[in-house]
Amino acid sequence: MDLLTRIKGPRDLDRLSLGELDRLAEEIRTFLVDAVSKTGGHLGPNLGVVELTIALHRVFESPRDKVLWDTGHQAYVHKLLTGRQDFSRLKSKGGLSGYPSRAESDHDVIENSHASGVLGWADGMAKANEVLKKDDHVVAVIGDGALTGGMAWEALNNIAAAKDRPLVIVVNDNERSYAPTIGGLANHLATLRTTDGYERFLARGKDLLERTPVVGRPLYDTLHGAKKGLKDFIAPQGMFEDLGLKYVGPIDGHDIEALESALQRAKRFGGPVIVHCLTEKGRGYTPALEDEADRFHAVGKIHPDTGLPISTSGLDWTSVFGEEMVKLGEEREDIVAITAAMLQPVGLGKFEAAFPDRIYDVGIAEQHGAVSAAGLATGGLHPVFAVYATFLNRAFDQVLMDVALHKCGVTFVLDRAGITGTDGASHNGMWDMSILQCVPGLRIAAPRDADQVRAQLREAVAVDDAPTVVRFSKGAVGPAVKAVGRVGGMDVLREPKTDARPDVLLVSVGALAPMCLEIADLLDAQGISSTVVDPRWVKPVDEALAPLAERHRVVVTVEDNSRAGGVGSAVAQALRDVGVDVPLRDFGIPPVFLDHASRGEVMAEIGLTAPDIARQVTGLVAKLDGRFESRAAEPARD
Amino acid sequence: MDLLTRIKGPRDLDRLSLGELDRLAEEIRTFLVDAVSKTGGHLGPNLGVVELTIALHRVFESPRDKVLWDTGHQAYVHKLLTGRQDFSRLKSKGGLSGYPSRAESDHDVIENSHASGVLGWADGMAKANEVLKKDDHVVAVIGDGALTGGMAWEALNNIAAAKDRPLVIVVNDNERSYAPTIGGLANHLATLRTTDGYERFLARGKDLLERTPVVGRPLYDTLHGAKKGLKDFIAPQGMFEDLGLKYVGPIDGHDIEALESALQRAKRFGGPVIVHCLTEKGRGYTPALEDEADRFHAVGKIHPDTGLPISTSGLDWTSVFGEEMVKLGEEREDIVAITAAMLQPVGLGKFEAAFPDRIYDVGIAEQHGAVSAAGLATGGLHPVFAVYATFLNRAFDQVLMDVALHKCGVTFVLDRAGITGTDGASHNGMWDMSILQCVPGLRIAAPRDADQVRAQLREAVAVDDAPTVVRFSKGAVGPAVKAVGRVGGMDVLREPKTDARPDVLLVSVGALAPMCLEIADLLDAQGISSTVVDPRWVKPVDEALAPLAERHRVVVTVEDNSRAGGVGSAVAQALRDVGVDVPLRDFGIPPVFLDHASRGEVMAEIGLTAPDIARQVTGLVAKLDGRFESRAAEPARD
Repeated sequence: MDLLTRIKGPRDLDRLSLGELDRLAEEIRTFLVDAVSKTGGHLGPNLGVVELTIALHRVFESPRDKVLWDTGHQAYVHKLLTGRQDFSRLKSKGGLSGYPSRAESDHDVIENSHASGVLGWADGMAKANEVLKKDDHVVAVIGDGALTGGMAWEALNNIAAAKDRPLVIVVNDNERSYAPTIGGLANHLATLRTTDGYERFLARGKDLLERTPVVGRPLYDTLHGAKKGLKDFIAPQGMFEDLGLKYVGPIDGHDIEALESALQRAKRFGGPVIVHCLTEKGRGYTPALEDEADRFHAVGKIHPDTGLPISTSGLDWTSVFGEEMVKLGEEREDIVAITAAMLQPVGLGKFEAAFPDRIYDVGIAEQHGAVSAAGLATGGLHPVFAVYATFLNRAFDQVLMDVALHKCGVTFVLDRAGITGTDGASHNGMWDMSILQCVPGLRIAAPRDADQVRAQLREAVAVDDAPTVVRFSKGAVGPAVKAVGRVGGMDVLREPKTDARPDVLLVSVGALAPMCLEIADLLDAQGISSTVVDPRWVKPVDEALAPLAERHRVVVTVEDNSRAGGVGSAVAQALRDVGVDVPLRDFGIPPVFLDHASRGEVMAEIGLTAPDIARQVTGLVAKLDGRFESRAAEPARD
Repeated sequence: MDLLTRIKGPRDLDRLSLGELDRLAEEIRTFLVDAVSKTGGHLGPNLGVVELTIALHRVFESPRDKVLWDTGHQAYVHKLLTGRQDFSRLKSKGGLSGYPSRAESDHDVIENSHASGVLGWADGMAKANEVLKKDDHVVAVIGDGALTGGMAWEALNNIAAAKDRPLVIVVNDNERSYAPTIGGLANHLATLRTTDGYERFLARGKDLLERTPVVGRPLYDTLHGAKKGLKDFIAPQGMFEDLGLKYVGPIDGHDIEALESALQRAKRFGGPVIVHCLTEKGRGYTPALEDEADRFHAVGKIHPDTGLPISTSGLDWTSVFGEEMVKLGEEREDIVAITAAMLQPVGLGKFEAAFPDRIYDVGIAEQHGAVSAAGLATGGLHPVFAVYATFLNRAFDQVLMDVALHKCGVTFVLDRAGITGTDGASHNGMWDMSILQCVPGLRIAAPRDADQVRAQLREAVAVDDAPTVVRFSKGAVGPAVKAVGRVGGMDVLREPKTDARPDVLLVSVGALAPMCLEIADLLDAQGISSTVVDPRWVKPVDEALAPLAERHRVVVTVEDNSRAGGVGSAVAQALRDVGVDVPLRDFGIPPVFLDHASRGEVMAEIGLTAPDIARQVTGLVAKLDGRFESRAAEPARD
């Protein structure tokens, strides 16, 4: 690591020879495997962009020139070259973010880790340079997968409009998505004029062809087809030049000299230009290269030599959903599934294996996931679109105007809902229960445990005239939380230990049920009696809630979602609407962007813990009692 | 009209000769000019698709085959041919909708009038046909402009993936957007093989070139460039076939025989196919053809012979904004403007004329409008993105993850906010103040009159470290509503006529100020005293509101937005958070989709009127008083 440790900033790269740069690349790969094995993180993508990142920082002068990373999970090498080499607490509280972070470095510009947006950012920054007559460079690095997103097309269409506005687009075309399409791509590349790149490509392509496994399953055909369209869009020089974009490539993305040469040409071009780089995801790390599923796209803590996980977690929410989907698929032929380029992460792998003709991977295209679901439903099927909660934001208009307006029976399964923690602000699924409140007819289920995931998913897919949402947390699912009663459609999780009018109605949302039971215990210790209820379906608010609330002195809602316009607000409104003016307090996530840390750390920081909430509720009850001391020592009221 | 009146359904077209079909087309144009002159509506687009619609209904068997209209404003001819010929109350309550409507006819499938979505619908419906082994046809009609939207790209990418799944895409390429790009397009068409279509195209293109005015302004260059990228995308057969889409065209969209022949070929093809039709917006109506601005895209009531508006409205919200933008542009060189293909409708025409280098038309691409704004702001400018409130839904994720997360000084001006009425469910701007509540740091201004539009726009563009929103209504702006005092940042519009603790605090949002003053008068008549306050900035809730609320017995909020998670909910939460548990009632739009009718009719229907609200508030105050009779005859309290 003698070379790497000497790199304090990008300009330190300038004095290295090509031989030293190759050695540096090796050092970086060794560093990444070692460091990310210990912390978890996006290993595969970063192993693929080592040389590309070195070349970018040799050719462009960050931070004066702006190097923008799409999604940002491939920015580890960029971090290493810009003064950030302590990866010991990667993604942990106080440690480096797993994405670019403006707080960490002036070299980081965009920290949004939703895909496909970088070209739009670059278009805006290039326009600003033009208006302000600045001559620094804007460089956008985007993966081939991200080009399937509509934002990328909207941006290309705009970027192409201004032939004299400089902007460098680096397409990081990694082998993994590239391999299956080499046939069609090779045909089109015959038209390329860049002989140098073309020859390298041919040599490389032949090698790849020999190593490519046969993928004969229909889903792969679909993916293949989708990718083909994309590749044809990327590859032919003619196409790009028709669009008004200069095309340079294809470039071997692991040849620093070739990369620098291409990037220098692009830098001098004076207009929009695409540099098409072929890279290999997982490059240099055998366990990654041998992993057909995703080339170690993102890993937990692993053994660095074998690449095997160090610990396996227990049952997680995603698997519970995935297994129930297979059962539902067997029972109902009209159930189909949709994923936006996240087949395995959202738990649809087994469904795909069982029903290859009834699953659609639409690419990184949540808008299309939702609108095509409306079409599928109108055509007579019941689609289940499984997507990370935070990514549903991309499809809000389609959920509202296509699915809900047309009363389509579409089920959205929102994985990673609530605080996810270590991936930082853009991955917390804390918006869904707020923005979906205003969607007419849409129903939201927030299951509290594995049994409820199964049960509520079944209830959801039984609805065929309105959108339904099932949202659950990230990671391990806790033990079952049994109901002790039922009021309307709501499960009572705990009855008050008093026959008199109880003090507090605790409305527990989803996975926070155990926390609410703990709150009830803490309140008990203060002599405050409470009922804990899980509404199960949080939208619409159950009609049985208001009468129940009226029998209590205070209503408290607890949810793993933004407080702004969340379940608490909906409950409060429902109570007002029927004239139940019992004081209410709603606990949830404050309307701020949350820094990366573990879920527990984030919850402690925002006061979403049983002791914090119990303390506040105790204070409120004391205020209603007209006294501020503890009630513990007092005789029971009534 | 003897032919038209005999058409009761599409199959009645089957027995007409080609000559009769041409006569029918003439009759339809006469009918449209006559009918739409009286009611207002989308005249130009419908005049352009007369022959295309006839041909579609001759070749396909609606409603068994599904004919899907993108956006839907061009479906008037479709209505005429499917049994709906009473246009006398078009867009009025109880009359025909201005868009497809499933309630009107089985021939209507999609009624979402947000652009670019039809290809996604079609993809879903074609997939359903495949799974269910149905052999009916799915036909999607989309304009060239709508192809600039990212949804269209996402869909094409998916559609192209399945070569054996039948789907017919009709690109309705109308002359108006086509004319400026003929040079580049003509070059590419040299590669086309469809000689027949090619020859027609050439003949037509020459004619157009001679008639095309010189448009030398930079914005037009931009538009031209944007369109060029699009056209190159559409035009070359090679490109479509690379994508896996069969291309048929270009077809003269006013030649019924040619259209039928092309559509028949497409119908038989057995895979995804694009039929490229060249049509003329405003066809056959001289006033429309002579209108360079938008070819009578949408008109109010006009004189059918001259095409001139029958009445001119007074000052409208949009113009007030547009004029202030010009002043701001003069004062601050860093202010730039963005529109998503709506330059004139959002009032940016004058800004464009004054500052042609500081305005960007991004196409029908709200996502790009927002994300490129983040780039512009990060690059040192202050962008103002003017957009219809309902269309901001398309850019929610970009507002949140790009603009807000990065603390960008971007101002969103939301026109047509609140109930717009006659365009129906998808054009009401009733979602913005709900979904934006959870966006950290974002501030929302709801100006109540023209002076406040000017003042609050200035306050908004002065914020450079957070997104700001200025939202206002559609149509004429009312007279100025003067403040009688100020509390915090809020204007007091009316003080209570009592020195004692007043009964009601009325929180008025935006244009509803006059209604709130009327409510106060009605309450006065019942002996109920009230304060009326306009918070001006509704997000965040002004800190001065809670102390003010505490001095009243009831808080009432009135907003022109969905009640779900709107300003009322935010105010309620803000009060709860500081322990102010004064009973609150929030009035706004119920969470339902609203049928088309005038704004006044809609408001009456949902009870958003002064008498309705006054009645409910009176009831609440009476309940608090512990009595339910009118207080009018009672002595004043205290």
